Formats: sequence, C-alpha cells, structure tokens
Amino acid sequence: VLTQPYTEPPESRAASLVNPTPGDSLIEIDTPALLVDLDRMETNIAGMSALARESGLSLRPHAKAHKVPELARLEVEAGAVGITCQKLGEAEVMAAAGLTDLLIAFPMVGARKIQRLIALARRVHVITTIDSLEAAAPLSQAAASEGVMIDAVLEVDVGYHRCGVDPQAALGTAQALATEFEGLRFRGLMAYEGHIYNLISVEAVEERAALSYNILGDIAARLRAAGVPVDIVSVGASAAARVAARHPAVTELRAGSYIFNDLAQIAMGGATESECALTVLATVVSTQTSERAVIDAGAKALSFVTIPGYAGYGSIRGHEGAVIDRLADEHGMISIPMAVKPFYIGERVRIIPNSGSSVINEFSDLVGVRNGTVECVWPIAARGRMQ
Amino acid sequence: VLTQPYTEPPESRAASLVNPTPGDSLIEIDTPALLVDLDRMETNIAGMSALARESGLSLRPHAKAHKVPELARLEVEAGAVGITCQKLGEAEVMAAAGLTDLLIAFPMVGARKIQRLIALARRVHVITTIDSLEAAAPLSQAAASEGVMIDAVLEVDVGYHRCGVDPQAALGTAQALATEFEGLRFRGLMAYEGHIYNLISVEAVEERAALSYNILGDIAARLRAAGVPVDIVSVGASAAARVAARHPAVTELRAGSYIFNDLAQIAMGGATESECALTVLATVVSTQTSERAVIDAGAKALSFVTIPGYAGYGSIRGHEGAVIDRLADEHGMISIPMAVKPFYIGERVRIIPNSGSSVINEFSDLVGVRNGTVECVWPIAARGRMQ
Repeated sequence: VLTQPYTEPPESRAASLVNPTPGDSLIEIDTPALLVDLDRMETNIAGMSALARESGLSLRPHAKAHKVPELARLEVEAGAVGITCQKLGEAEVMAAAGLTDLLIAFPMVGARKIQRLIALARRVHVITTIDSLEAAAPLSQAAASEGVMIDAVLEVDVGYHRCGVDPQAALGTAQALATEFEGLRFRGLMAYEGHIYNLISVEAVEERAALSYNILGDIAARLRAAGVPVDIVSVGASAAARVAARHPAVTELRAGSYIFNDLAQIAMGGATESECALTVLATVVSTQTSERAVIDAGAKALSFVTIPGYAGYGSIRGHEGAVIDRLADEHGMISIPMAVKPFYIGERVRIIPNSGSSVINEFSDLVGVRNGTVECVWPIAARGRMQ
Repeated sequence: VLTQPYTEPPESRAASLVNPTPGDSLIEIDTPALLVDLDRMETNIAGMSALARESGLSLRPHAKAHKVPELARLEVEAGAVGITCQKLGEAEVMAAAGLTDLLIAFPMVGARKIQRLIALARRVHVITTIDSLEAAAPLSQAAASEGVMIDAVLEVDVGYHRCGVDPQAALGTAQALATEFEGLRFRGLMAYEGHIYNLISVEAVEERAALSYNILGDIAARLRAAGVPVDIVSVGASAAARVAARHPAVTELRAGSYIFNDLAQIAMGGATESECALTVLATVVSTQTSERAVIDAGAKALSFVTIPGYAGYGSIRGHEGAVIDRLADEHGMISIPMAVKPFYIGERVRIIPNSGSSVINEFSDLVGVRNGTVECVWPIAARGRMQ
C-alpha cells in the first residue's frame, strides 16, 4: 500500500471544487474563497507602473505576492521589466507560463538547485542572488563548465539581518564576484529593507528606508570608483516605493504587495483600505453568544501572521470593532464588543488579510470579481513551489 | 487576457517538481521538503489503535492532521472505525479515495454546502455536526426533501469557546434535534477540548480534559434518562487520549496529531521527541555572522504557529540551543547563542514542527522515508480543501 501513491480520479476534483464560473454572482461562491477586486487591482498595477516610469526606475514586481502567472503577465504588460521570484520553483512556473526575465531573490545552494538554475538560465534571462562567496563558488564552477553565463547581484544587509553581506564586506565581496568567478556576470546590488515593517509610523518607515538606500548608494559609488560597473541597485518594499522612487541610488524596485495591498501596507502608510483588492470571503457558521461568532476561515485561510500595532488576523469589512482574535486550523473566532453590529449564522463576510502573500499561499485558486460578478478564476500556480 | 485562465503545460510540473523517487537517499531531496519517518509513523498508528482497542473506544482519526488519503486508509486498516474531516472539501477528497465512514466536525452552513453534503451522504456514511437549530433547519429540510437521512452529532462547548452549544443548552437542543428535524438522525455528542493546548503542565491537561468529558457524560446521562439514545460521545485531542481512554462517558476518539506528533504534543505530554515522525528538511543558505544562520524554510513552510512556553518556529534536530526565532515568507532565521554548534552553508537540517497540521497544509507532497531512503511520495491531496 505504501508504495502506491494515490491518484485522485478526475471527477473527484470536479466534485470537490466549489469554484464559481464566470458570470456567477458573489452569493454563489462557496466559502472560504479568495477574491480579488479586478478594478482595484488594475488601478494598483497602473499606479505603481506610473510611479516607476515617472521616476525612471525599473519595476520588477515580486511575484510571490500573487503566485499567479497571469498576474505577472499583466504587470509586465503594464511596463515592468520582468518579475522577481523568491524561490527557484516559483521561477520555473513563471518561465513555463511565458515570463522571460526573472530575478530570483534567494541564495541558490545545493547541487540540485544549481542544476535547475542553469537549466532555467538556458531558457530565459535569469538574475541570481549571491550573498556569500561560499555559495558563489559551486554555482560559478557549474555555470562555467556548462558554458552558461548567469547574471548575479550581490545581496547587502541594510538592516533587516536576514540574508545579505554586511555593508562593511560588500565592496570586497562585490569586487571578488566581479572578477574571480567564471560563469557569473556581476550586475549590481540588491537589498530587502524588510526591517521597515517593524516600524509603526510612516515617518520612521520613510527615514529608515532612505538610510537603507544611502548604504547601497555608498557601496555602488565606491564600486564604480574602483572600476566595477553597477547596473542594478534593486530594492524591495512596496511601503517604501515612494522613497525609492526619489532616491538617486536606486535603479530597480521589486515591490510586490502593492498589487493587492493588505493591512501590513496600511499600517506602513503604503495604502488605504479602499486600495486593498484582496479579500477572504467567509461564512459565519456559529454564534453561540452575542460576544462571539465563528467563521469558516481559520489559520489555514488567514494564516497566523500578525501586524505590529494591529489586533487580530484580518479586518472584517463592515464590522468595525469586531476582532478575529483566535484562529484554529479551520475556524476563525471573532470577538464582538458591546454595541458593535452583531453577526448572524449564514452571513457572508469579506476580510482584508494582514498579509496578502501569506494568504495567497493558503488557497489553490484566486477568484477575480468585477462589479459583484465573477469574471475569472486563476489557479495559484506557483503556490507551494518553495523548492 | 483576464478571462483566459493559464493552464500549466505538463512538462513544467515535471521540471519544477523536485521530488525524489523511491530508492533515493535523503541527500538527493531538494529542499524544503516534508519528510515522514515511516517506521515511527507506523508505530504511532499501531499505538493509538491499541490504546483505543484495549479501552473499548472507537478510534476515528482526524485526517486534517495529514490530509493524505493513503494515511487515512492505513489508520482504518489498523482498526479505526472511520475518519474525521474538518471540512467538507477534505471529506470529498477522502471519499473519492475510498474512505467510507466520515465525520465532518464542522457546522454545515450555506445552500451549496448542504447540496454537496447530501451528495456525499448518498455515496458514503457521513456524520454531520450541528451546533445550532438555525443551521440544522435548512439541512433538515433539504435532506428530507431529497429523501436522505443524515446522521448528526451535537457539538457541545466544553471550554474551548469555539463552536458548540453551551452545556446548559445542550439537553434542550439535543432533544429538539432528536425529535423535530426530519432528515437528520441524532446520534450523540461531540466536543473538541482544544483549550487544553493552552495549558503547560501535563497534570493540568489531564485534569481539564477529564472535566470536559464529565460535562459530556452528564449531558449524555440526562438525555438517556429522557429517552433519547446517545450512541456516540466523541472527543478530540491526541494529547488527552489516555484520559479519554479511561473515561466512562467517552465512546469515540478523534485524535489526529498522534500520527506524526509535533512540539505541541510534546509540550502537552502527549509525545516525546523520539515519537515525532514529521520533519521539515531544509538547507542552510546564509551564515553572515556566527550568531545567525538562514534556512530555506520560512513561514510558507513552517507557518507562524507558536506553542505556549516554547521559543521559535520548530526544533532543529542536533542543534540544541539554536532557535528559529524569525520567519519571512521563504526564509527562516536562526539565532545561535554562544557555545552552540555552528551552522555551515549547504548544511541540511531537519526541523520538528510546532504543529504538524499547520505544516502539512503548506506542502504539496509528503516524502515517506525509511532507513534514510525514500520509500514513497504522497500528494497531500486534501491540502487547501477548506471549502
């Protein structure tokens, strides 16, 4: 039994899928479901595209925010130079769907990863991310021996303390990368200023983002002075897009969350509630007391991600004051303060998530809605492609 | 463009899938990957099966813990009377795979859900969960008009304050269910004692679990005295299985986590580390300082679920003292105290997750391993079937 993997018969997928078909109204969608307001999303895409164009920045949207190849294509059609992927598996899905210019913002480590990266680089333009010479060496050797040249950017730690070389070490590492590694073509610098998401004032966000970009600008200037060309200075966060747009050192913006926006973006001043395009549609299934309601969207729909300064796991439209304060795997528990609008069994609610990129990874399909009607259903094709 | 859903070509799934094939060694598995130690899992299944059999309890394992139909079948082959599903979508997948006795431990609310439940009840034995007469009424009407009789249990809130009627209201609600609702056959009581997972001593867990079962026993006795048959008194938590096994009121155990175990079970005294079968295999991709390492398993692999009294997002085997204390979507950041074993780039680590059922929902495939060799790869077929 153990060695015979189960293959689901085709009819069972049809039976268990509860997705609507184009033309259905919202009431016909079974819950929980992940909805995107198409008008709002298109406005968000156009807005970020215009900001980048007017600032002379290259826009390379982060596809981990949606994981849907069709949405990556919409971003490119609106003017993006290419897309960013967080994992090689995502990039493979995007390349298979026709995306041709991909930055993978993650260190490639391990023999299988390197083989797959080289295979991908033969088919599309790939930029890989390096944050250590230890990881660069086997990649360089494999690329050189296969006769492939792969573009590379050096990741710099500008304060988030995740990946990225220390700014003190960036100059030497970049010089080594640019001169000593066959098969790799040094293109510039990248950084993710994720530490700004721990701040809770817009002013602090903007100040910290600008400081991060100053660090990159300083390294780039010193590299250029040393004769190393720096074509790309790539930064990441949607919430700091306006700061990046006016900063002279930045050449490329990898904003991702902007396509939908979420409570994290609102908290950072990067969006307003009306600019949020993504919602989880859920049904109230239990209301045992006037202080508590339960919806059919739990941790497996909303995720346990939290936002500094925000209570709960998402904001319920039209129910101000109610808080989704506990999650079980499939239940969301809502606390209802006195004098707040009650919930009733069977009521359908729409929840703006804390983090769009977390929620997108929980669902298999994204339902596109316009004027209250289903227009399309997209498989979230890169969901779970973490490898 | 918007109305043309993208269909991934078959070869791209092959290219992006990095799953090993049977006979591969662990080193050939690309990461992050979800591994199950088959010897350990089989021992866990046999152990819970023996506990239930020796106690005269029916075992109805909760399939949300694994979401893999093959594992549900193994549980049934070991003696389980059927399985539990948390959502109708999971139950549909399990039924399509040949499971024939399914308790859905969630209120069925909404016209589509009711139609699907009735369709499922025509094919397999289904027990539905009721926690309000409001939700029971449309289900009853639909079942009666379709000529289907559906077994139903009443969910009672024994202290977790999620779904379930208050114990004070249970007698009256159960009597109404048993007598006034065509199409529904009242079978008994169910409860989930999830509040025990907030406790941090084994004694407190056992005491609170026993109190919960006393509540059910009291309601069952009063119902029987009133002439209402109570065939089923079903309880849920793996960590309280030993308490349930010796409690006279309990007839059925819906333990789920026991199949793999996880840090939550260890914290509750329900398992030891050597009894944990599930691990996330990850690769160290960056070590910028001796105080920090980064692995390729982030929130989308490990989830943000936390355990009261435990630091971090999982326990790294062989690296005592190191803590996965921050997660980004695809990065896990490890804090390394002084005098603790260092990490090196390319090192592969195995992580016992905080919650098996959270992690199982993040991956698409489960890799079965025995003696360091891949034996099978199971699609996690019910993953994301939240509807």
